[in-house]
Amino acid sequence: VSSRFGRVFQIATFGESHGGAVGVVVDGCPPRLAITPEEIQRDLDRRRPGQSRLTTPRQEADRVEILSGVFEGRTLGTPIALLVRNEDARPQAYEGMKDVFRPSHADFTTEAKYGIRNWQGGGRASARETVGRVAAAAIARKLLREVAGVEVLAWVRRVHEVEAKIDPGAVTLAQVESNPVRCPEPGAAAEMIQRIDAARARGDSLGGVVECVARNVPPGLGEPVFHKLEADLAAAL
Amino acid sequence: VSSRFGRVFQIATFGESHGGAVGVVVDGCPPRLAITPEEIQRDLDRRRPGQSRLTTPRQEADRVEILSGVFEGRTLGTPIALLVRNEDARPQAYEGMKDVFRPSHADFTTEAKYGIRNWQGGGRASARETVGRVAAAAIARKLLREVAGVEVLAWVRRVHEVEAKIDPGAVTLAQVESNPVRCPEPGAAAEMIQRIDAARARGDSLGGVVECVARNVPPGLGEPVFHKLEADLAAAL
Amino acid sequence: VSSRFGRVFQIATFGESHGGAVGVVVDGCPPRLAITPEEIQRDLDRRRPGQSRLTTPRQEADRVEILSGVFEGRTLGTPIALLVRNEDARPQAYEGMKDVFRPSHADFTTEAKYGIRNWQGGGRASARETVGRVAAAAIARKLLREVAGVEVLAWVRRVHEVEAKIDPGAVTLAQVESNPVRCPEPGAAAEMIQRIDAARARGDSLGGVVECVARNVPPGLGEPVFHKLEADLAAAL
Amino acid sequence: VSSRFGRVFQIATFGESHGGAVGVVVDGCPPRLAITPEEIQRDLDRRRPGQSRLTTPRQEADRVEILSGVFEGRTLGTPIALLVRNEDARPQAYEGMKDVFRPSHADFTTEAKYGIRNWQGGGRASARETVGRVAAAAIARKLLREVAGVEVLAWVRRVHEVEAKIDPGAVTLAQVESNPVRCPEPGAAAEMIQRIDAARARGDSLGGVVECVARNVPPGLGEPVFHKLEADLAAAL
Repeated sequence: VSSRFGRVFQIATFGESHGGAVGVVVDGCPPRLAITPEEIQRDLDRRRPGQSRLTTPRQEADRVEILSGVFEGRTLGTPIALLVRNEDARPQAYEGMKDVFRPSHADFTTEAKYGIRNWQGGGRASARETVGRVAAAAIARKLLREVAGVEVLAWVRRVHEVEAKIDPGAVTLAQVESNPVRCPEPGAAAEMIQRIDAARARGDSLGGVVECVARNVPPGLGEPVFHKLEADLAAAL
Repeated sequence: VSSRFGRVFQIATFGESHGGAVGVVVDGCPPRLAITPEEIQRDLDRRRPGQSRLTTPRQEADRVEILSGVFEGRTLGTPIALLVRNEDARPQAYEGMKDVFRPSHADFTTEAKYGIRNWQGGGRASARETVGRVAAAAIARKLLREVAGVEVLAWVRRVHEVEAKIDPGAVTLAQVESNPVRCPEPGAAAEMIQRIDAARARGDSLGGVVECVARNVPPGLGEPVFHKLEADLAAAL
Repeated sequence: VSSRFGRVFQIATFGESHGGAVGVVVDGCPPRLAITPEEIQRDLDRRRPGQSRLTTPRQEADRVEILSGVFEGRTLGTPIALLVRNEDARPQAYEGMKDVFRPSHADFTTEAKYGIRNWQGGGRASARETVGRVAAAAIARKLLREVAGVEVLAWVRRVHEVEAKIDPGAVTLAQVESNPVRCPEPGAAAEMIQRIDAARARGDSLGGVVECVARNVPPGLGEPVFHKLEADLAAAL
Repeated sequence: VSSRFGRVFQIATFGESHGGAVGVVVDGCPPRLAITPEEIQRDLDRRRPGQSRLTTPRQEADRVEILSGVFEGRTLGTPIALLVRNEDARPQAYEGMKDVFRPSHADFTTEAKYGIRNWQGGGRASARETVGRVAAAAIARKLLREVAGVEVLAWVRRVHEVEAKIDPGAVTLAQVESNPVRCPEPGAAAEMIQRIDAARARGDSLGGVVECVARNVPPGLGEPVFHKLEADLAAAL
């Protein structure tokens, strides 16, 4: 089953790029974890397009609604369903792609596998599918912090040829959030922005490297043979 | 993970009796199956309380919304999310139960297992949790019929001491639907209704027997050792 | 996957009735549980045919070998592989069944599902497949007792029309083991044995009822929606 | 569960480095696939240590035994259990490590996670655990070739600084097998062997790069969101 991930804390994402909504159902979250819509919204706002000129021009508020699993501000131990309506779904914007396969959007493989084309903006193979992951991860992050003091933090280390000098042990969330490319080194960040703007002006985009650190991870996480922590992280990426 | 069922056609239900909504995400449904909201609604209407004086007095329209997975009237092969808003969620109606354990609603075991009480109407241990199952089953039923010609039909065979004489090979859906107790034999149905009304007048309820038949089942379904068809059906009940 | 059962303490049985061996791999057993081959052997001896004239005449010592997962008398937390060689596998005894479908041995469904016949004694649909279950259960039983003080005990309550009067709360293992039909009430046991002998003399067999009790079960076991304890027990039977 | 891999063709490996045996149970292999012990043995012989002076000096014949699942030269569709006895298990050779943590053998994490040490040669975190994988993979490879014409081939592309020039589309198994480092380019292979010998003389070892190609892979394999083919391959590595 393709849209499920995890074995204890298990998520099931749903939603096409231009359908009615995207979201996620989290099953296996322990009861009595304090969680508010605002905490989830904060991470969705970080994901949201339209924050700066550097990303996709799509404009959506992406307001999350908790449909179930939370009662009086705490999880119940029951499935947590999170819903985000698609607002800027303009199928007509994709009319021209009805007969064209876009690169990197799985258009060809989707047709080969399912015999059907959801030509409106990539279907599941869209950055919009990550809304569900981000919403579920906001809960997972809170849980990891409350239960084990684990902190997970990621940032942009490199864009094209611009590589920032970063000490992974010292980076703070505030530093990461201080600029739209989310590179904690201000000098490198400025140059990255410049390069992205230039590429955009040429009708191009740039690759990069995201770096991630998990702090206070207890020893022994992961399984010893097939589901090693490294294996699951590799699969997740 | 408690709210997932199935391995290929896998469902994940969510929603408490008196939260914002109930629903289901179906993962693993093949693409290109024609399905309309009306077909799902028809089965939800059969489940819906308030159809007759014989059941719970709760009044809800239970309108289903397809959030994802269906495009131009056909499944995409992606997760199908179905949502039904809770409309008649009157938490105040349950105020008196805040400190009382109701029988047959898992109130005690829920508190023992999760250390939390969702005293508003039973949480997950509510007939309302079946909304997600019924909605997903409407799709499963369509799929079984289209792909393999399988027809599944159930009816009330017995209420308390009234047992209907029924030929399982000949019963039709129209016969089952012809009366509010859904017993295909009119004489027995009339007596069942009478008995239920009498029990209700005494402030009581009655047990019964539901019978089910699956027609045109191909040989070889189910697994040979642990997931025999009988075992999965037994677990489902 | 058909021969796997369980989600945390997971077993995988293998072996045909008349192949080289039967056995099981247990994955998910916690480390540091003391277990000896003798403890497993004791349960296999209870299962073993040829203990009395009442069961199948097959004669096998069924010696279990621990291939892995136990070191210096304690589990390692790694998979525990248990092996029992088939000794009394006389394929020639089944020559006459090469072209005959035996009832209750899944001969027909196996051919329908797999397109192949393992005509030597039923393949997987043989009482011999239970060797792996019994061996794994001996470990599970030890674990349940050590960790939670749970005791599971089963006995024959009824054979055909002979029903024993039994107090499930008071039965002991010694009472169950005191006769070959394993009915803890001596009077009923004697009559059951007489009936079975008579049926055997007629070339017939008799049905019966097995009753099981689990003591000291902590509240909250099982999942609240789809994998309720009752559902998993129903499937297991 | 840590030692299970795969969802349809599912394997369960077992066995410690210095226990009684290592092996695997394959569940989900279709029936009627022709397979012989020799085909499995061939791959185990390629894995076997002691083939040349370049690898571990351990000497074991590693004879595979098919315990179940194969009848008259064809798979039955039932679990296939494969067993390889440990012959060169010399626990005394590891006596000196009883109180020492070896690097890269998970000694520390095993103790942290399980609270137990299997100091005899690494337990599960040993190259010997791969015996089960290789044996199961021999069946998987046969199945892929018979059913879909898929061919999977791997070789050593690089050892330390020596990189071979290889055309992945043209490499043959015979070329890979032509030398003990299994690099299909003879010149590079010779230099690799020289470097390894030199490192070994210094009491050191060398890293390298293995390259793998899968030919005739049908489009659409893998899942679209979480279990993409790339994700599963990444996890497997």
